[in-house]
Amino acid sequence: METTLSYKDKRVVIGLERPFVIIGERINPTRRKKLVESLLQGDFSLVQEEALKQLKAGAQVLDVNAGVPGADEPALLRGAALAIMEVTAAPLCFDTANPAALEAALEVYPGKALINSTTAEPEMMARVLPLAKRFGAAVIGVISDENGIPPTPQDRLAVARKLVDTAAGYGIPPEDILIDCLALTVGADSKAGQVTLDAMALVRDELGVNLSLGASNVSFGLPDRKIINVAYLALANARGLTAAITDPTVPEIQTTLLACDLLLGRDEYAQRWIRAFRQREKAAAA
Amino acid sequence: METTLSYKDKRVVIGLERPFVIIGERINPTRRKKLVESLLQGDFSLVQEEALKQLKAGAQVLDVNAGVPGADEPALLRGAALAIMEVTAAPLCFDTANPAALEAALEVYPGKALINSTTAEPEMMARVLPLAKRFGAAVIGVISDENGIPPTPQDRLAVARKLVDTAAGYGIPPEDILIDCLALTVGADSKAGQVTLDAMALVRDELGVNLSLGASNVSFGLPDRKIINVAYLALANARGLTAAITDPTVPEIQTTLLACDLLLGRDEYAQRWIRAFRQREKAAAA
Repeated sequence: METTLSYKDKRVVIGLERPFVIIGERINPTRRKKLVESLLQGDFSLVQEEALKQLKAGAQVLDVNAGVPGADEPALLRGAALAIMEVTAAPLCFDTANPAALEAALEVYPGKALINSTTAEPEMMARVLPLAKRFGAAVIGVISDENGIPPTPQDRLAVARKLVDTAAGYGIPPEDILIDCLALTVGADSKAGQVTLDAMALVRDELGVNLSLGASNVSFGLPDRKIINVAYLALANARGLTAAITDPTVPEIQTTLLACDLLLGRDEYAQRWIRAFRQREKAAAA
Repeated sequence: METTLSYKDKRVVIGLERPFVIIGERINPTRRKKLVESLLQGDFSLVQEEALKQLKAGAQVLDVNAGVPGADEPALLRGAALAIMEVTAAPLCFDTANPAALEAALEVYPGKALINSTTAEPEMMARVLPLAKRFGAAVIGVISDENGIPPTPQDRLAVARKLVDTAAGYGIPPEDILIDCLALTVGADSKAGQVTLDAMALVRDELGVNLSLGASNVSFGLPDRKIINVAYLALANARGLTAAITDPTVPEIQTTLLACDLLLGRDEYAQRWIRAFRQREKAAAA
């Protein structure tokens, strides 16, 4: 099954036979004071800078979050989207819990966007899925519902099924749903990483849909988080992960995901691996 | 299924619920001029040094290869084994294609050793398996037979089954066989990494035996091999790899394998992860 996102005539396809898709996470004001300040002043130059930097580093899709407490999120999210579209041609992923902001951004977006995200809570699906249908967007469905995050892989599969079935009721096909099996921190529960990996394999086998992941929660509270997150991305690749919301400007993330493509048969003649190696050499020499 | 190796009263257990077992690969004269020279002089001090260094870096078992062209391999392998046993208390893995050398080493070894390795070729199994039975050693069975390395995961499973069944005929139980699904270079065939990973999952599901891997062939001929090899170890962990012959003194290998243990539920309360982090901090401060 393949998920196609687009921006004007630019297409990005997510699927098991395709190169892994990095959704750049850096356009997000959470814990970034400078970005908050510039957004509050209606200045999107930093957003544009982050967009260009992430695409250069290998992102194929850009996550856009403009949630600044107390600010006019619909205006900010739409403004950020318009500013990014001025300088790049990549599909966007709108990251908001605010339906008005989501609608404001989707209205000005010329293509098939990704929505980040809905849970399987009925009210949330009822808010997000009609917008996805109306604007033809794909949606990240997070495996969590009114009862929280299910403890077992089988229960997570059931929630994934509810997401896919409910979306189908709105006329959204399964290829437009990316399931996020949600990794909790192994610092609190040593089985948390394994449960999510097992859920991923189950969802992939039973529903065939593509998978996305916000991988960095898994290391919350632990030292040397980067090493843990990078290893988790590789483990998840072996269980069918096809996209992740992550930071491509971290060299280890970029190189590990390229290595996974190479090792999982998604980089014929190692062309992308060798090209990226030469770019690293060039950058190191400069 | 659990594989127990031992040296005197020291035990190392290999299994899915156990910490990943690193079999240190550095005691091997291939392409190491200084080690060749010292071995030819009957000087095992460098071998002892490598043994200690690898155990300190997290190896639990030590591979011992004393194959120097033209030299008396039985004497060298036995000498190396005795020298290592003088300074450490870790199970050993005897790495030789020479049955006389294997016998010479097993004769002086007080415990359950690992033999590296036999293929599924009838003559090779007929040489190696009786020695394994006689000395109570475990054996790495490499998925290759008189027809070479099978191209598909299903065919590799068939060869693995032949290894396990033939061993059973000699009275060697399946828990004493570690299967190496053999990774060829993705530089020559972009599907080579994937086929091996799929074979690993199949062998694990169908035969239940433990898996080992010499992971570094997968990157042969490509630039930045270390990144590829480390990513492959993580991918293989997600498919049930429980041990690997590798170099624990490479920091990225050590940390990634520890991260895999943490993420696969094999490091309760993240105790080993945090301890290793503190050791790295201490080493960096020194």
